[in-house]
Amino acid sequence: MNIYVIGIGLIGGSIALDSKALYPQTKIFGIDSNEDHIKEAIALGVVDEGAVFEDVAKADFVIVSVPVDVAIVLLPKILDIIPDAAIVFDVGSTKTPICEAVVNHPKRRNFIATHPIAGTEFSGPSAAITGLFQGKTNIICEVEKTAFKLQEKALWLFNAMGMRIRYMDAKSHDKHIAYVSHLSHISSFMLGKTVINKEKDEQDIFDMAGSGFESTVRLAKSSPAMWTPIFKQNKKQVVKTLEEYIANLSKFKELLENEDYDAIYSEMESVNKIKEILNGMKK
Amino acid sequence: MNIYVIGIGLIGGSIALDSKALYPQTKIFGIDSNEDHIKEAIALGVVDEGAVFEDVAKADFVIVSVPVDVAIVLLPKILDIIPDAAIVFDVGSTKTPICEAVVNHPKRRNFIATHPIAGTEFSGPSAAITGLFQGKTNIICEVEKTAFKLQEKALWLFNAMGMRIRYMDAKSHDKHIAYVSHLSHISSFMLGKTVINKEKDEQDIFDMAGSGFESTVRLAKSSPAMWTPIFKQNKKQVVKTLEEYIANLSKFKELLENEDYDAIYSEMESVNKIKEILNGMKK
Repeated sequence: MNIYVIGIGLIGGSIALDSKALYPQTKIFGIDSNEDHIKEAIALGVVDEGAVFEDVAKADFVIVSVPVDVAIVLLPKILDIIPDAAIVFDVGSTKTPICEAVVNHPKRRNFIATHPIAGTEFSGPSAAITGLFQGKTNIICEVEKTAFKLQEKALWLFNAMGMRIRYMDAKSHDKHIAYVSHLSHISSFMLGKTVINKEKDEQDIFDMAGSGFESTVRLAKSSPAMWTPIFKQNKKQVVKTLEEYIANLSKFKELLENEDYDAIYSEMESVNKIKEILNGMKK
Repeated sequence: MNIYVIGIGLIGGSIALDSKALYPQTKIFGIDSNEDHIKEAIALGVVDEGAVFEDVAKADFVIVSVPVDVAIVLLPKILDIIPDAAIVFDVGSTKTPICEAVVNHPKRRNFIATHPIAGTEFSGPSAAITGLFQGKTNIICEVEKTAFKLQEKALWLFNAMGMRIRYMDAKSHDKHIAYVSHLSHISSFMLGKTVINKEKDEQDIFDMAGSGFESTVRLAKSSPAMWTPIFKQNKKQVVKTLEEYIANLSKFKELLENEDYDAIYSEMESVNKIKEILNGMKK
């Protein structure tokens, strides 16, 4: 079997590592616009060989793990040249524009739209790790548009990688993911910005920052090349979450200015139930 | 030697555990407004015995790890009754109101104002852990107002616990800590609120949340009883950081509404240097 991974970063590389372990006889080919990434991925054992785009004409599996603006351009071109029995999936954090990009393609049934909810704040082939997807959720959109036999092939891989499958329509995915992922990234980036701007002349102030600060700004290490197109493609939903977040922060500030400390206590107390929600996530 | 810990939660309990290991001959007494906390702390081996407030008349060391609104009331009363050779320190996240509460006390020289930058989002005696302070920063304010011999006594303990000492005036502490700690907590609480409010009827949506969301809302598990008085005592600085944070978020939203994706990319790229800053924190 031939597996082609287009974009050998954290996600693509980690899928490559798991695929190699699950299909030891398979050859994993890496395609990347950055030549150094291919060399690095081979050296790290993340992929077996480098390849070029046209090689996907020989693929059994194509995994598309590139920024979402690139994905919408590449996906129709991939479907144009793959063999009839091949299955293609993407892993992007937006699903509506990606599904729309292939909706009328004659080979739409060779594509399955997925979003594995996994990752770290690191990028590039060196960020790839075995077992990244164990116990994680993989959201699959518009599954009915994928040929049944090819669904089975992809699902076998996702299950073998240890993922839990959730089915959802693309619009619902994009709406909810804006709250539980996209907003967190902006909140983190802007928190980092606020502190850096203020403390730029006093670098040693960061000695005062503890693990709490580190936790809240962790996502501000994320790649702008990956995240700019995500915010672009999910603009409407992201703007809405930002409006609500800013309104909640403004209300908190107002309560503080008005010295309504009972209300401030209640605000925090009512959010404390996030403990149980987060514990639920781990089940 | 007799050590009295007033408030046997995460911080007080962890100091008790380290102190016991460092001074094996010492008796550690726990004082807490919650009787169950005393029982729990004894059962867990966090303290040796329970005690009442008046017992600090026999103390060599008094550690005050209570919410900051309680600290400003208790500290003068503690100084009223401790022996002349005793040293008292607090661990509060605000320093100006605490220093002001004892500024004219005849026993001001028996007090040292500290803020160990350590913690987790958990509270109560069961949250206490050995070694919590290893490699962490302890900020000491107005050290010149503490008797030299008593400074030495406290510093020996802080160093033995593995803490790095930073000296700072109380106003600078409160200004900077608003950025690197207090703002993170509000950002996290309001992020939790925004998502909970939106998704309250769809609990299973939290399946979509990954480790990124978990990281940014971790601090929303923090205790309102501890944090309300911190925000109250540092109101002016906290309001200022919130204004700047809200302005940065609003600007980001505006860039998104105007579809200025180059600017959005630059915003994120310029914050990416938080990587190096956070790595610097670990040195």
